[in-house]
Amino acid sequence: MHINAIPTPAAVVDASALSRNLQSMAARLPGSSLRPHVKAHKCTTLAAQQVAHGHRSFTCATPREVIGMITAGVGDDLLLANSVLDVDRLTEVATAAQSAGVIARVAVDSVETIEAAHRAGVGDVIIDVDVGMPRCGARPDHAGQLADVARQRGLSVSGVMGYEGHLQMVSDRSEAKERVAEAMSLLRAAHDDVGGDIVSTGGTGTHDLHTIGLDHPTGVTDVQAGSYVMVDTQYATLNQGFEQALTIVGTVIAHHGSRYVIDVGLKALGMDHGDPSIDDCKIWFCSDEHTTFTSSERTFHIGERVHVRPAHVDPTIARHEELWIVDNGEVIDRWPIDLRHW
Amino acid sequence: MHINAIPTPAAVVDASALSRNLQSMAARLPGSSLRPHVKAHKCTTLAAQQVAHGHRSFTCATPREVIGMITAGVGDDLLLANSVLDVDRLTEVATAAQSAGVIARVAVDSVETIEAAHRAGVGDVIIDVDVGMPRCGARPDHAGQLADVARQRGLSVSGVMGYEGHLQMVSDRSEAKERVAEAMSLLRAAHDDVGGDIVSTGGTGTHDLHTIGLDHPTGVTDVQAGSYVMVDTQYATLNQGFEQALTIVGTVIAHHGSRYVIDVGLKALGMDHGDPSIDDCKIWFCSDEHTTFTSSERTFHIGERVHVRPAHVDPTIARHEELWIVDNGEVIDRWPIDLRHW
Repeated sequence: MHINAIPTPAAVVDASALSRNLQSMAARLPGSSLRPHVKAHKCTTLAAQQVAHGHRSFTCATPREVIGMITAGVGDDLLLANSVLDVDRLTEVATAAQSAGVIARVAVDSVETIEAAHRAGVGDVIIDVDVGMPRCGARPDHAGQLADVARQRGLSVSGVMGYEGHLQMVSDRSEAKERVAEAMSLLRAAHDDVGGDIVSTGGTGTHDLHTIGLDHPTGVTDVQAGSYVMVDTQYATLNQGFEQALTIVGTVIAHHGSRYVIDVGLKALGMDHGDPSIDDCKIWFCSDEHTTFTSSERTFHIGERVHVRPAHVDPTIARHEELWIVDNGEVIDRWPIDLRHW
Repeated sequence: MHINAIPTPAAVVDASALSRNLQSMAARLPGSSLRPHVKAHKCTTLAAQQVAHGHRSFTCATPREVIGMITAGVGDDLLLANSVLDVDRLTEVATAAQSAGVIARVAVDSVETIEAAHRAGVGDVIIDVDVGMPRCGARPDHAGQLADVARQRGLSVSGVMGYEGHLQMVSDRSEAKERVAEAMSLLRAAHDDVGGDIVSTGGTGTHDLHTIGLDHPTGVTDVQAGSYVMVDTQYATLNQGFEQALTIVGTVIAHHGSRYVIDVGLKALGMDHGDPSIDDCKIWFCSDEHTTFTSSERTFHIGERVHVRPAHVDPTIARHEELWIVDNGEVIDRWPIDLRHW
């Protein structure tokens, strides 16, 4: 099938760009030094590609992501990097992991989340530490106490994680590197109190600022990058050598005066980083099912396909049912986005 | 099941508020004077409630919405109020409508969309007219010509539609009323050239500014309001007497220092109108799976349920699989959001 025969709007992946992104990251952070975050793509087929590139441990944001990965048989060391109180869902995670012989570790940052993991029969937990991003994560000087509580409940404590999300988009890279090291000092201090083999952190924006290995005073064991597989217009500004592999393809459905309208609207996009982009065009506005735009550089005819670059890839993919994999203009595969919802 | 046992994040509907919204609108625009837009809720069970309140004609934004309504047997006069070039999907619409004995009208605004409808075997079209909102819609003085083209192709032309989306949020209601009348003058002039029984327009924001009946010089036959069933924080500012029936319910999963974190993030929300609201709280920021907030007026405990009011209801609902219907704190039903995607 030619790309122009795909029903629109459609989440289309350039297979070559995706492949180069996967290879590039696997060269920088090989094997277990990358713990790819599946929240970015929510697709077990893509996660299997990451396994093929040498990564067998994964990060997940929701119970459904963990359970879906286990069901698909992808990865053998899964970290639920979120504070979850839902004992039913955690029980499902623990049961699925046990019957599949897969490690499922669950992040905890409070007595309540430890209690939920304990009641659910979760075997391994990891202490989530606040390293400066104001969200989940225990205070660094509280991490050791939490580890003690977890061990008293009979849980195995695998180590620490701390997401420096506030540093993902710092454009001055030397400043970013310095602040990442400061954040990792906090995480390592917490790790000294907690123990365990794992010190996990990071994202695409900081993946190149970390040192792998606990011999280094601010080193870590693995980086939780996810968006590198697709990149979006925001991450592209960091010029990290990854390509924008995902576009939302639409059809020009109307052309009146100077304006064009395509059938890619905000129900097909994540809008929290603002409007998407179209090469050589000026976005006028997005509505539920449409984007209206103008261009002084290009003309389009009704029926023509247009590639829309999302501003934020993770919530964009979460709006679609499948990824259309395209190579040289031909559809070579369709991958279900099978890890959606909670 | 008690509301606090619903797994979160969850799209929760207050049954009483929904019922009052449905009754209130049915009293203002009874029967066929309202053509409810299903894009707001994407739920055939809710559409069936609208039928129970006297409305049998509906507006849809996507082929899948039309086909889903026909499959569910809800409504008998469906308007696809969008420019669609996809002949396969239009064929599916036409075939489903024919075999179910339902009227499916398709909006057209160009020779190309007429041609697509013709090739798909669509019986009825309606000319979409630009009444000032820069999106789809033919120029008013071009509408008659398009109707001629459609009739030459053997299509029946049922009338005109023109969405005054640019006037939905005009807060000065006398200014809004005046501008709506101007827009409807354009639509009626187009209708004079087009003919047919239908002059369809409007949304929740302008539903109370229209006159029903073609005897009035700027009157219309029906209003395409949809969001009135749920309302969001933006529509609530218009004080039209509808209640915010939908909240996204989350669980407090972390409490560190002055900040609380709930498991309702931007993957559970439409973010194009900005951050959601929580009563008596200050939203700090939303991330993929979390909202971080503070409050000087309330305290929360870990595990407590929190109601989040979305800023834009339509794209919020489109992120969920089902609506949880709650009455006096008890879940009384679960309705699949079965009209999602395209």
